Order: sequence, then structure tokens, then C-alpha cells
Amino acid sequence: MKTIKVIKIGGNIIDNEEALARFIKDFATISGPKVLVHGGGKLATQLAKQMNIPVQMTEGRRITDAETLNIITMVYAGKINKNIVAQLQANNCNAVGFSGADGNTIVSEKRPIKTIDYGFVGDVKQVNTEALEVLLNHTITPVFCAITHDANGQLLNTNADTIASELAIGLSSIFNTELYYCFEKNGVLEDVDNEDSVIENINTESYAQLKENNIIFEGMLPKLDNCFHAINKNVQKVCIGKSDMLFNSNNKHTTITK
Amino acid sequence: MKTIKVIKIGGNIIDNEEALARFIKDFATISGPKVLVHGGGKLATQLAKQMNIPVQMTEGRRITDAETLNIITMVYAGKINKNIVAQLQANNCNAVGFSGADGNTIVSEKRPIKTIDYGFVGDVKQVNTEALEVLLNHTITPVFCAITHDANGQLLNTNADTIASELAIGLSSIFNTELYYCFEKNGVLEDVDNEDSVIENINTESYAQLKENNIIFEGMLPKLDNCFHAINKNVQKVCIGKSDMLFNSNNKHTTITK
Repeated sequence: MKTIKVIKIGGNIIDNEEALARFIKDFATISGPKVLVHGGGKLATQLAKQMNIPVQMTEGRRITDAETLNIITMVYAGKINKNIVAQLQANNCNAVGFSGADGNTIVSEKRPIKTIDYGFVGDVKQVNTEALEVLLNHTITPVFCAITHDANGQLLNTNADTIASELAIGLSSIFNTELYYCFEKNGVLEDVDNEDSVIENINTESYAQLKENNIIFEGMLPKLDNCFHAINKNVQKVCIGKSDMLFNSNNKHTTITK
Repeated sequence: MKTIKVIKIGGNIIDNEEALARFIKDFATISGPKVLVHGGGKLATQLAKQMNIPVQMTEGRRITDAETLNIITMVYAGKINKNIVAQLQANNCNAVGFSGADGNTIVSEKRPIKTIDYGFVGDVKQVNTEALEVLLNHTITPVFCAITHDANGQLLNTNADTIASELAIGLSSIFNTELYYCFEKNGVLEDVDNEDSVIENINTESYAQLKENNIIFEGMLPKLDNCFHAINKNVQKVCIGKSDMLFNSNNKHTTITK
């Protein structure tokens, strides 16, 4: 079985032109099959402001109404995705941009309304890897934005970390799969203000402990839940850290194990 | 050799939600390999207005400055392309959206400045069908927006009619290729105000005559030039008319021959 790397990048790379150019140059040099997943960064919020579309929040969570979905589709699948693909081509990495609608790769379900109506937000139901497989077999790299569809014609906004873990799980039946979450820190930190305090290994047991002791909290919880979801569903390796971890084996980062 | 249909649709379909839904439903039923190319319609101009970005014209031609290219990328490759792909999926037609950057399919060159600087407009230099071929062989339908790239990381705005003819020419080495330009009229008309005056066949000789007699003029000229470019470069069949011509063999339309 070949090894594939599924690599997710977020706002710290996407929102910084130089950081993105540097990352793309490095990413292009990774040998073997690979998939890139990108979040949206700050550009969607900027465009919403420019278009005078108010950001709607409920209990601290952003709501994806029809206008916001429209903006997200334009920014994520249009501007960011196509510019990343063009830059990869310039670095001799043949890439094809994807949303979950393309190739019917990621089918999701509009999140049911319980206490909060999140609007056009999709929870992943099914991953189909056929289109990815045929491209990967021809050394073409899929580049995913964080948009899925419900198979009835409706696009849906989906968390980019979730897209990365679900794609990794889907691909793990045909590849030895490694999942890398790149973000602005060196990994999961013992002390959030100390970049040297990287917890190098977290397993199910220590994760429970770290949560109980409030060392891991807030935004890190859904990210780590995605990591454990992947490692428990056949993904062979899951790492969190700065993107440098991909290119420099000495770079400290967090590895998730069962 | 299998036969492939390359079908281009424009504003009369894209700008009308019902017409688009009807077209997609019909398009999904076309058997055999097919490629869809869509223009941009009026949505880009609407978004530019909403964002207070002025439309720049020089000698009656629109200029694609950096902000306009950004809008076009968001609207064509994001909003329109992804919604068409999602609707095709809903009609059981497995599709993948493409710009010319995706799969490095269409490499273009920024139009050189002679008397007018058109800005980020690309003239097609090269078509690479590898990514299309592997998808088409798996009954996946490519859906193209009218954006190309220069292979150095720059996206470029390119005429959708030209994209359709260049793709048809590129695919003609591996398929028996038919090119269909769908627009708001029944075909090339002898009398522009009479929908019954369709000229059913135009060849190189009669085209010269029709131009000389001012029966064909203005906007039809570049469209017909694209048709003749295709038919002279190995495309087996080129037709212009309402999209009905695809689904009803009795529908009058114009066929271009050498």
C-alpha cells in the first residue's frame, strides 16, 4: 500500500501571502500522493464587510445564512482554491481544486435544528474517493476547500478540520494514510503561552486526563476530537503542529495515538 | 473512437434560475462523454456594483484589472461553477468543476498590450487533456468556467467561447468531438429579428459572403471565428443554436462546415 499525506492548512498560512507562497513551494516538493485541505481564513469576513452583509452570531457561533454561504462559496471555492491551484501549477505540482460536490466526494447533511439553527452547515455523511483515486493514480493532487453538498443540489459550509479527517478516513481503505493539521503553534501545548511546552504524544487516556485538568480546552477540543476520530478509524498517523513538521523531522509537534 | 460533446452555455441560461435547472436536468441525460463550459452572465457585474468596484471600459471593451479578476474568480469558479456541479450531482451526473489552472488544462498568455491594455486577460496557448481524460474514462463530467492560468501562478480571464473551442480541439485527438454553442437564438439568423430565418449551414465560402453582405456582424463574428477555428482543427461537428438543439433533433440550428 502506498502512503498518502492529507495536509490541512488554516488562516495563519492562508491569510499571509508570503507564508502561503512558501508553504506551496514546500508542499510541491512532497513526494508521493498527497491531498491539501484549506480553511477560509479571514477573507470571507472581509468580503462580507465590503458587501455590507452582517455577520450573524448565535451563542458565540457564526450562522451560515444564504448570503453567507454565497460569500463562502465565492471566497473558499473561487478565490482561495483557484489561486492555490494556480500557484501549485507554477511549482510543477499538478493539482485539481475540489469542493465536496466535485466528484460527489463529500456528501453532508444540513445540521438539524436543535437549540441553534446554524443555517447552511453540513455534517459529513459519506466520502466517495473514486474521483480522487483516479487523479492520485495520475500524480494529480486534489486541493479541497471546506464546502460540501447534500446530493440534492445544496452546497453546505463544513469545518475544514472535519473535511481533512473524513477524507483521511475515506482514503485509508486504499492508502496508508497520514493526517497533518498545520496551525500557528508547535503542537498541543502544556502551557498555551510557551511554544516549547509541546506535548509530543497524546493518546485516548492522556487526552481524557488533559481535558480533566483543563490543559486542553476551547478551540483545541474539536481539533483533537477530529484527530481521535481519524486515528480510531484506520488513519495510520495523525500529527498537529506548524507546517515545518512536514519538512523538518527535527521539528517538535504533537502525535496522536489510540 | 468514442464521441464526446463539448457544450457551451451563456448568460441566457446562467442568469435564469429556472432555465439553468431545466438545462442541467436535460444535460444530465446526455449519454456518453461530455464537457460543459459556462460563461459568467451578469452576476460578476452585479457583484462589482455591490462592492462599489467600477467597471472599466476602453474603446467599448471591458478591462480586467486585479479587482475585476478577483470578482470573476469568485463568481465564475466559485458561485456559478460549484452550484452547477452540485445541481448536476443532484441529477445523478457525476461532475468535477474546472478552471484552466485545474489539471493544468488550459495555459494562456496575458494578452500583450498593443493599443489597449486589457489587463488580466489570457489568450489560450496550450490545452492539456490528461486530467480530463482520466475523469471522462470514469464517466465523470468536467465543468469549465472561463478562467485560465499562465503556468506562473497568475489566473487570467478568458472568453468562454474560446475555452469551448480550444477544449474541443484538444479533445479531438482522443475523441470524435462535437462542439455545441448554446445561446438565446435558434442559430445564425439571416434577419436578426426573425427567429425563423436560421441559416442552417455555413461554410468558409458562405461565411465570407455573409460577412461581406453585412448579414453576420458584431458579436456573432468572434463566435463564428471560434467555430471555424474548431472545424478546421479536427473537431468533427460544430453547431450554434438554442440548447433545445441538443435534445430535439427537429430543432432548427446552424451547422458549421469547412
